[in-house]
Amino acid sequence: MSDPADPVSLVSSANVDYYDAFERQDIEMMSQVWEHSERATCTHPGWPPLHGTDTILESFAAIFRGPQTLQVILTDEHVMVEGAFAYVTVVENVVDQGGDASAMSALNLFAWDGVRWNMIAHHASPIASR
Amino acid sequence: MSDPADPVSLVSSANVDYYDAFERQDIEMMSQVWEHSERATCTHPGWPPLHGTDTILESFAAIFRGPQTLQVILTDEHVMVEGAFAYVTVVENVVDQGGDASAMSALNLFAWDGVRWNMIAHHASPIASR
Repeated sequence: MSDPADPVSLVSSANVDYYDAFERQDIEMMSQVWEHSERATCTHPGWPPLHGTDTILESFAAIFRGPQTLQVILTDEHVMVEGAFAYVTVVENVVDQGGDASAMSALNLFAWDGVRWNMIAHHASPIASR
Repeated sequence: MSDPADPVSLVSSANVDYYDAFERQDIEMMSQVWEHSERATCTHPGWPPLHGTDTILESFAAIFRGPQTLQVILTDEHVMVEGAFAYVTVVENVVDQGGDASAMSALNLFAWDGVRWNMIAHHASPIASR
């Protein structure tokens, strides 16, 4: 068992919270995952970079209004913590309602606010089939 | 004029060094841009995440052995510095020898070693045409 107060465990948990909010299409939960700041940034697959939490949450709200629900199975997670800053790389195995799967590479950044780890950047992109 | 010792200027300069090494296909210069560690990570467009500087530099060496030379024009640069950690978002406007251009969204991370900023993560992905 890993120590639940270990920074790596806390960052991993915050990373899972992001994917839970995404799977549930829960904009309130997604809002709690993110740091609320202008420095927050997000690149959805195929998108240009977005800046600022308001703009990012609007993009998730638009995505959540779509007809599709998606399951995300995380593999190959690497967590790096340095002081009040952390990054996670993970492969998102995204499965749609029809059972079709696609793999995305993600780089997620988190900042510690003294109480919890907040997402400050998310960048995901499709891994080409080989 | 920005202060050359300002962390934001130094990070921006380190970020430009990465693209200079890429354009010049200079693996020695690319090696100097990166932190040499297992925590270094890189996702090229369409690729899965790579881990460790040796693996990352091998991927650049393979890319540089290709026939194509590319020019990269950077736009929409945002630099965020917090302590010994920094991230940059930028749009890479990649122009090939035939003049064809494509746009990539990039998220680049840097760590301060007391002397200079070293790249610890690079993630780039194509922006879909709209």
